[in-house]
Amino acid sequence: MNSNKFAEMDATFNPRSVVIIGASPTVDIATLAHLKTKIRGCLFLVNPKYTEIFGRRCYPSVLDIEEPLDYAIISVNANLVCRVIEECIQKGIKCAQIFSAGFSETGLPEGAALEQKLRETATGKIRLIGPNCFGIYCPRSGLAIIPESTEEEGHIGVIAQSGSVAELFSYFGRTKNISFSKVVSYGNAVDLDCPDFLQYLADDPDTHMIALYIEGSKDGRRLKEALAYAAARKPVFAIKGGMSDSGNRVARSHTGQLTGTPVLWSSLFRQCGAIQVNNNDEMMNAAVACTHSPLPRGNGVAMIANSGGLSVMQTDLLISEGMNVPRFSEDTLQKLRAVVPVAGTSIGNPLDAWPLFYRIHKDAGNMAEIIKIIAADKNADLLVFMFDQFRYMRRALRERAAGHMQTVTELMLKGCSYCRDVLGKPVFLSIMLDPFLQDEDERDIDLSLKNAFQQRGFPVFPSNEATARAVSALYKYARISGQSHI
Amino acid sequence: MNSNKFAEMDATFNPRSVVIIGASPTVDIATLAHLKTKIRGCLFLVNPKYTEIFGRRCYPSVLDIEEPLDYAIISVNANLVCRVIEECIQKGIKCAQIFSAGFSETGLPEGAALEQKLRETATGKIRLIGPNCFGIYCPRSGLAIIPESTEEEGHIGVIAQSGSVAELFSYFGRTKNISFSKVVSYGNAVDLDCPDFLQYLADDPDTHMIALYIEGSKDGRRLKEALAYAAARKPVFAIKGGMSDSGNRVARSHTGQLTGTPVLWSSLFRQCGAIQVNNNDEMMNAAVACTHSPLPRGNGVAMIANSGGLSVMQTDLLISEGMNVPRFSEDTLQKLRAVVPVAGTSIGNPLDAWPLFYRIHKDAGNMAEIIKIIAADKNADLLVFMFDQFRYMRRALRERAAGHMQTVTELMLKGCSYCRDVLGKPVFLSIMLDPFLQDEDERDIDLSLKNAFQQRGFPVFPSNEATARAVSALYKYARISGQSHI
Repeated sequence: MNSNKFAEMDATFNPRSVVIIGASPTVDIATLAHLKTKIRGCLFLVNPKYTEIFGRRCYPSVLDIEEPLDYAIISVNANLVCRVIEECIQKGIKCAQIFSAGFSETGLPEGAALEQKLRETATGKIRLIGPNCFGIYCPRSGLAIIPESTEEEGHIGVIAQSGSVAELFSYFGRTKNISFSKVVSYGNAVDLDCPDFLQYLADDPDTHMIALYIEGSKDGRRLKEALAYAAARKPVFAIKGGMSDSGNRVARSHTGQLTGTPVLWSSLFRQCGAIQVNNNDEMMNAAVACTHSPLPRGNGVAMIANSGGLSVMQTDLLISEGMNVPRFSEDTLQKLRAVVPVAGTSIGNPLDAWPLFYRIHKDAGNMAEIIKIIAADKNADLLVFMFDQFRYMRRALRERAAGHMQTVTELMLKGCSYCRDVLGKPVFLSIMLDPFLQDEDERDIDLSLKNAFQQRGFPVFPSNEATARAVSALYKYARISGQSHI
Repeated sequence: MNSNKFAEMDATFNPRSVVIIGASPTVDIATLAHLKTKIRGCLFLVNPKYTEIFGRRCYPSVLDIEEPLDYAIISVNANLVCRVIEECIQKGIKCAQIFSAGFSETGLPEGAALEQKLRETATGKIRLIGPNCFGIYCPRSGLAIIPESTEEEGHIGVIAQSGSVAELFSYFGRTKNISFSKVVSYGNAVDLDCPDFLQYLADDPDTHMIALYIEGSKDGRRLKEALAYAAARKPVFAIKGGMSDSGNRVARSHTGQLTGTPVLWSSLFRQCGAIQVNNNDEMMNAAVACTHSPLPRGNGVAMIANSGGLSVMQTDLLISEGMNVPRFSEDTLQKLRAVVPVAGTSIGNPLDAWPLFYRIHKDAGNMAEIIKIIAADKNADLLVFMFDQFRYMRRALRERAAGHMQTVTELMLKGCSYCRDVLGKPVFLSIMLDPFLQDEDERDIDLSLKNAFQQRGFPVFPSNEATARAVSALYKYARISGQSHI
């Protein structure tokens, strides 16, 4: 992207002043969101119906504001949008994001006509994001999508045709322990479109990974160029919403875009070096992996578990995701046999050995030592630790279980830190936590383990399936980028 | 299954007295579990090291117990198992489940020899379950696997080669709102094997659905006959653990069984009319669907959502699972257009219309009415309701959100009850609840909605993916059993 275009896009994401047109004292998420960020000092509100909203002056029109304005957020009836845009142009505003819906996505001729008129009104005079979108979340500048998004600056860039997908990322970032450089929801894309955002985030030094949710495109050739440009520079993970005929039909009525066949999209992603994932959960988990893990040097997974059945199913899943679950070397097995009891365990890969969770004071053979032995295996490129042991501990140790679990957590952290920091091999922690579990004691223990690992910068996932998909996503990027030897 | 064999199996699951051999005052889950059930009145403990455990008399040997004994649970060192079995035979015990591990699953010659000796000791004299297994959970008789399993009698039968898979079902039944007729973990299957349990549960009137986790088989022909026998009588859902080469290798070291190729297993299940699922979560969700839903008459899914992006992804997923997301009829669309605002919504299938969650007092066009309109569509065989709205409500309504949500819940229940009880169409509720979410207010609301729907007997799932797989599992059974017209 040339430097002028980059500067223009960068200014769009980092405006010095913002006006919300159609601000309201009732349901107005945009105003609530921006009152919470650093932008509030240069935030202006417009609505002819009010003189004050949330204790701040409200202007009848942007033309009544004396201060210069960079960026407008427009949330008025679709029929009024063009008139408002004309005022924005007159005011010298450089970019407007249009929340308002009621354009081509309705599938009605009047909606399409309104969108065409909007395009003609704006072209060459003001840049537009939307309509039918949630716009930008940028922690650095203070642009926000929701009141709950943090001001913490991170390195994930999100480009989403769907507003609610952008909202999901912005909201669940904290829960997932990821943070963002920029998030943009671009809806019907009457002006700025997916390729513009891809090229910008490709060149943006704050963005280390791009997450893309796309339903369709107006210009396939431009999209392909931008995808390839971005994927050559950083990991790009992509969801094509509407892979089935029915899904495509729904996508058309969602953002009014031309779509295409599933095969075409999958091969587009592959050719460009982007990695296709299936849904927003997989995408967020890929972002967790990219944020909190080094890249694996190969596809060999070493596993520690405490259930034979789950070990078997997880092995199947990892294999189906393109990973390998190799045998441990004879050297590793000998070392393990010296310290792991035979009965009721399986000394191999996965290591299925519940007694490890109880032998915490032995110098040799405690959890930290076992993790080190396994991590050092020459066939192991990364370690997956499956934790599902606390209810067993509680049965065996009763009131001592919580204290015991603290020691186990320390030993796990010691071994896993060695694996990552000394050997340079990724560690993924899988905690099987049922979302509907209403046993608060068990939930607290699982969350404490999660928090302890997250604080030390490890990627943690709430199910074995989520873990396997995240492992696979990270490995695919390592392979594509030539950083894995297999 | 002939009536003598059935009576023998039924007596095995419903013993009049139980002895735990190798009981211990420290880590002894079996004793703790059985002290909590109705069996405690005829429970005996054996261990020569103790005279009393948990305040109960402990005998040196089964031969010292005067009362007659039906069933033994053996938890002693593998080397002692044969001697203990001989005593059980002498005592006239009819069946023993062997928790002890250290047999063929070790992969060591001495383990295999020990298993052969065990087989020879028992054959014709006592029935065995295991070794290397958790045995039986039967709420009616009081046999238990874990101390937390409820005494509530249900209709799901579980047959699991893996102990921890049986444990997962027993433990998470309450969380998932399912209960069990019988759960059996059979491990290395030195005597009673998967076909015996399949035939028994096929004829057991208390069992309405069978969940099978199998890693391998000693006698493929017998397994095939039993699977077909069971699947002809009730839904059978099956997981083959070890579908990949590596998974197979792990399975062999887990329960010491001969395995087979993935294609062979998948075609075995298909030929027999059993429905293959991928993992324990999918299996439990299939059990939720079977327990709490009528069968769909076809594969047409109607959906209600509040996100275009999630609607599109869920449509894709349902299609990939063999379902259909048909267009609504013109009649349905007309009725919807009369009551649903156009802007920002998508009037079609899925209905993506967030304003519905706020228009709660209108006589026409409230949530209950909308659900009824959609449910009545001639192309809709079942309804999927995707709920992910509370955080939006909280932004819009603030302190009024929780009260508002109560009204929304009532309207949802009213519409969904009409769909199921008047129209006879299944309703699946999907609540997107991240397991790691640490916002207790939001979590409470989601769990209240879940509990309200569960209390009214609806199947509820914690993610869109779980919902789609459960819908598909139920539909597959409806089709196989000839109860769906498509």
